[in-house]
Amino acid sequence: MKELKSFASDNNSGAHPAIMEAVVKANIGHLKSYGEDEMSIDTDEVFKEFFGSQARIHYVTTGTAANVLGLRAVTHTYNSVLCAEQAHINNDECGAPEAFGGIKLVPIPSQDGKLTPGAIAPYLGHVGFVHASQPKVISITQPTELGKLYTLKEIEDIVEFAHDRDLLVHLDGARMANACAALNCSFFDMTTALDVDLVSFGGTKNGCLMGEAVIFLNPDIGQGFPYLRKQAMQLVSKMRFVSAQLERYLRDDLWLINARQANSMATRLAEKAGAIEGVTIKGDVDCNALFAHIPPEATEILLEKYYFYIWDEHDHTVRWMTSWATTEDMVDEFVNDIRKAVEAVK
Amino acid sequence: MKELKSFASDNNSGAHPAIMEAVVKANIGHLKSYGEDEMSIDTDEVFKEFFGSQARIHYVTTGTAANVLGLRAVTHTYNSVLCAEQAHINNDECGAPEAFGGIKLVPIPSQDGKLTPGAIAPYLGHVGFVHASQPKVISITQPTELGKLYTLKEIEDIVEFAHDRDLLVHLDGARMANACAALNCSFFDMTTALDVDLVSFGGTKNGCLMGEAVIFLNPDIGQGFPYLRKQAMQLVSKMRFVSAQLERYLRDDLWLINARQANSMATRLAEKAGAIEGVTIKGDVDCNALFAHIPPEATEILLEKYYFYIWDEHDHTVRWMTSWATTEDMVDEFVNDIRKAVEAVK
Amino acid sequence: MKELKSFASDNNSGAHPAIMEAVVKANIGHLKSYGEDEMSIDTDEVFKEFFGSQARIHYVTTGTAANVLGLRAVTHTYNSVLCAEQAHINNDECGAPEAFGGIKLVPIPSQDGKLTPGAIAPYLGHVGFVHASQPKVISITQPTELGKLYTLKEIEDIVEFAHDRDLLVHLDGARMANACAALNCSFFDMTTALDVDLVSFGGTKNGCLMGEAVIFLNPDIGQGFPYLRKQAMQLVSKMRFVSAQLERYLRDDLWLINARQANSMATRLAEKAGAIEGVTIKGDVDCNALFAHIPPEATEILLEKYYFYIWDEHDHTVRWMTSWATTEDMVDEFVNDIRKAVEAVK
Amino acid sequence: MKELKSFASDNNSGAHPAIMEAVVKANIGHLKSYGEDEMSIDTDEVFKEFFGSQARIHYVTTGTAANVLGLRAVTHTYNSVLCAEQAHINNDECGAPEAFGGIKLVPIPSQDGKLTPGAIAPYLGHVGFVHASQPKVISITQPTELGKLYTLKEIEDIVEFAHDRDLLVHLDGARMANACAALNCSFFDMTTALDVDLVSFGGTKNGCLMGEAVIFLNPDIGQGFPYLRKQAMQLVSKMRFVSAQLERYLRDDLWLINARQANSMATRLAEKAGAIEGVTIKGDVDCNALFAHIPPEATEILLEKYYFYIWDEHDHTVRWMTSWATTEDMVDEFVNDIRKAVEAVK
Repeated sequence: MKELKSFASDNNSGAHPAIMEAVVKANIGHLKSYGEDEMSIDTDEVFKEFFGSQARIHYVTTGTAANVLGLRAVTHTYNSVLCAEQAHINNDECGAPEAFGGIKLVPIPSQDGKLTPGAIAPYLGHVGFVHASQPKVISITQPTELGKLYTLKEIEDIVEFAHDRDLLVHLDGARMANACAALNCSFFDMTTALDVDLVSFGGTKNGCLMGEAVIFLNPDIGQGFPYLRKQAMQLVSKMRFVSAQLERYLRDDLWLINARQANSMATRLAEKAGAIEGVTIKGDVDCNALFAHIPPEATEILLEKYYFYIWDEHDHTVRWMTSWATTEDMVDEFVNDIRKAVEAVK
Repeated sequence: MKELKSFASDNNSGAHPAIMEAVVKANIGHLKSYGEDEMSIDTDEVFKEFFGSQARIHYVTTGTAANVLGLRAVTHTYNSVLCAEQAHINNDECGAPEAFGGIKLVPIPSQDGKLTPGAIAPYLGHVGFVHASQPKVISITQPTELGKLYTLKEIEDIVEFAHDRDLLVHLDGARMANACAALNCSFFDMTTALDVDLVSFGGTKNGCLMGEAVIFLNPDIGQGFPYLRKQAMQLVSKMRFVSAQLERYLRDDLWLINARQANSMATRLAEKAGAIEGVTIKGDVDCNALFAHIPPEATEILLEKYYFYIWDEHDHTVRWMTSWATTEDMVDEFVNDIRKAVEAVK
Repeated sequence: MKELKSFASDNNSGAHPAIMEAVVKANIGHLKSYGEDEMSIDTDEVFKEFFGSQARIHYVTTGTAANVLGLRAVTHTYNSVLCAEQAHINNDECGAPEAFGGIKLVPIPSQDGKLTPGAIAPYLGHVGFVHASQPKVISITQPTELGKLYTLKEIEDIVEFAHDRDLLVHLDGARMANACAALNCSFFDMTTALDVDLVSFGGTKNGCLMGEAVIFLNPDIGQGFPYLRKQAMQLVSKMRFVSAQLERYLRDDLWLINARQANSMATRLAEKAGAIEGVTIKGDVDCNALFAHIPPEATEILLEKYYFYIWDEHDHTVRWMTSWATTEDMVDEFVNDIRKAVEAVK
Repeated sequence: MKELKSFASDNNSGAHPAIMEAVVKANIGHLKSYGEDEMSIDTDEVFKEFFGSQARIHYVTTGTAANVLGLRAVTHTYNSVLCAEQAHINNDECGAPEAFGGIKLVPIPSQDGKLTPGAIAPYLGHVGFVHASQPKVISITQPTELGKLYTLKEIEDIVEFAHDRDLLVHLDGARMANACAALNCSFFDMTTALDVDLVSFGGTKNGCLMGEAVIFLNPDIGQGFPYLRKQAMQLVSKMRFVSAQLERYLRDDLWLINARQANSMATRLAEKAGAIEGVTIKGDVDCNALFAHIPPEATEILLEKYYFYIWDEHDHTVRWMTSWATTEDMVDEFVNDIRKAVEAVK
């Protein structure tokens, strides 16, 4: 089996060696199961150091589970969740929010996957009108599916707007480490300090094997979550193998080191590839995703050796994504091949 | 952190070293995600060697997921699933079959968690009657929640009974390795050869970190399952870390060696503990679970050092369970402590 | 089209003429829709005279809707509802509680469809255990599916037992008028006075065209019900045609007169048919349903002219049910035909 | 109780006298329940005269039920239904399609509530991609929520587009009588002849008390619907009182006479009110709904006497709707009052 040369997704990376080592070390014999082991309980405490002592943390195995179950826990089926039309919950979870979350999504048009109070406001009508789903949560993704970042002030504004209207704010943080690295802030700064109510916390894309969490920051929500997680088929028996990953991920700045590596490799790729005639990088690169215009024939040549997504067939945009495992050499080799491909098709 | 002295559940064991090694070896860099990697595709082929070429295998992370999603895939919400009242789906999944599977369960009284055509028949009335859920699946657990085994003939009889009535047969095989080891038969002998329609295949309890699968043997069912699995939040991105476990689990008889170890340790415990005056082993020990009458005061003493479940407070029954990781020394130490505890309370 | 000679169900009767007249009178031109019309609002007030001022009343179109939505409104999907195994919610709603209510039902064995604290207690284990559905509601049916009545004291005992354990009590009162008539008590006596939490109130079987209601008596439950009813497809637009029925049903003792007629016709039938040699009435006749042993060949003869259900093919039991529309002449003609049929097959 | 002067919705009208008479006549004594009565069976046959012999007709009590259950019957939860953003299923059913239908809706931007193949096409990507809900149904509303009509050719084009892509077409016909009257065509012409797959047929707004139906025209879909309807709490016991309405509605052109009256009263209102200086009718009036710009102060005056909706507060648009029960005198009186109100605020 040979490794893939991938700029497709940070999901294509493996696990960081230190995290793999933590998994191996967790294999110490018999422990209690279903999250009642000391290792999982200790990891909760580590999370509280990052998110505040009132945080309640529940581990799950996929980002879709974190999103759907977090949202389900804070809504009635007659509530709606407002999100950008590009949101993962709207496009990339195969209808899970509706079918397994019992949630009505209200997708809001957006250019870059970001919401603003002004964009949300027109979709909040009909409060108290029995024929309409009642808005309950604003869900934002940080960074967005288009690789863009909310500033802390922008998040704060959305939270204020939401709380004024008795709405909750959910932050889909599948890649929140990349966002914090880019904004040079802590998880606490981005969530607890801004009164975000609940978070989907992702570890998988940034170096774990499989480790995600639902984190309730608002003490008034999510009370029955342990039952819901079990019912939702997400209570793994040998939980230590999940919590050990996340404990290591949070320790010794590993999450930050990994995220910085991913982000800086994206910047390097943007700078070097963007300098090639015939390649245009679309917009700024906020984190670890970039979008480029490139001749479609060059894309075809590159796809023989590399794995990445054509984002829009019509305007010849491709998405390139870097990860904690992307190295300078990988970027440079890729840039070299891009240059050759573009020249070959001139 | 110190290891637990546990006879509570095979879930308390860690991962078999060979399986942990396979996980470490799977960490080779970038691979496609969501099960499209070669490693996962190859593991499918290994499963087909065990279950036949028509088998379709879908990996999930919990036994509850395997049960609920397998059953959901083959039922309409107006169907019912018949099971023993002791079934895991009825008692131990926090209502997941109903809430996330859309399934009406019909629990059937049973002494040992086993069903028979005779016990099922009275619950099959009202076919075609629009007010009644329409029976669609008979779900059996092998071994049962009470540690008992169906003979192959008994399974065959249930399948014949089911198919004569246009019903499917689901086998909850969270511990099916233990069953095959005890009955000295292959997975194929126990399922495909008997025309069982779908199987929940468990690897976690017998040495994996986290590895379960839904296996459709009947070619006419389960077509949309990949969408359902994604929607049900069970499509993990770095699937190789699941499939690598199961590939190793199936290779070199590891599943069988582990299951035999668990079973033989239960037999050893039953023989040695059963010989202690004041301790009575209830019934035969078919696999790796045993139930014992023991003075409640002795149980209290033992629970200070060991972890296991009081099964029935009223008749002073405890459940002891062994695993692939249980050793002769552990059993003998435990037996010794049982003897002391029983003597201490005489 | 000719009328059916039916002793099958009170559902086979038409509408009482006074109720039909009320529907005709409600047709006065334009009114607000969806229950915001004065007629519906006034009917709420009439209900409060019967159930107390704290009652909140929501009209629906079927008894299944009343049961499922009332229960859904007071449960999380990880809760369970305990009921007799014969309960309508368990057997006669095609899995609606599970599929549309998200409810785990725990059916409890019973001889006559009645529950007792003693029968319920063994099914209340596992509180706080994340693997088990958490008990939340005890649902009783008055009269039961087997035509039996709880005394007020028996209901009171169940409510006390429930409230001591933080459980709610739901009374399925599809035929509660018959129960109140038989026990010579008011709706208030049977529910509000006993601290029952919520009621499915039936009007259809006792003289309405289509008129049922969910009534919350406990002020702490069911807050979001109007949204749930709309979402559950039960908010009819021209609500006045439902509420007008129920207003008339409650006025001038119509509900009581109708129920007494049904009950007394059942008693008459039991006495007269029971006196025929070869016919045995099983147990006491509490309300308007009776169960009789009768030679199967006689049943065949009777079914040529009459419509009723064979309750149990094996022990030759039939169910006969009377309604507000059953007359003495109808009973006497039926008894005469029973006698002839039984004699013919001797 | 005094009648409402309503131009708010055709839901505010009562029942047509001939239909009320049919309900009264249906009250002939005992009949079989749950739709097994001759009256309901005969009504099925009447519907087949209108929709073709292959049509299967299932009565329900609300338009929301017809939409949600029809769509649920033809989809898996991992399918999506594409509709205009203004669709009733998207905005006016309180999330029922998602929560009780298990359906992912994909709302498509539209000016007048109409869809076209060109507007739909961009939303059909990701077929076979496991992360995305799989498109299955295009749902169109005729007339739309904005009172606009599809021509038969436009429907035909959508059906052809859909069937080419293995999609079904659902027609939400809550007001389809108004559409057929306006287009001078039959129900058959608008649905069966164009290969529409399933229809939500509405009778309530056009003269019934409560009478809607799900009609499957495509013989390959909707097989289990009777179970689904029961489970969805929509199987009324005394079905004759629903079917009798619809039978009369279809007989002697009553549906057409009523619809023509509603439509022509809307035209009259548009012509006469549109001639008032200060009032502008927006666009053409296709059926029985019209939208008008009118000074907001005039609206306030009118709302003291009349009941209608402010459609858009920002651009001072109101919606006026006529029904089968709207008379020329009512229109003329309303027009007179509009004139006075507009003049009063000049």
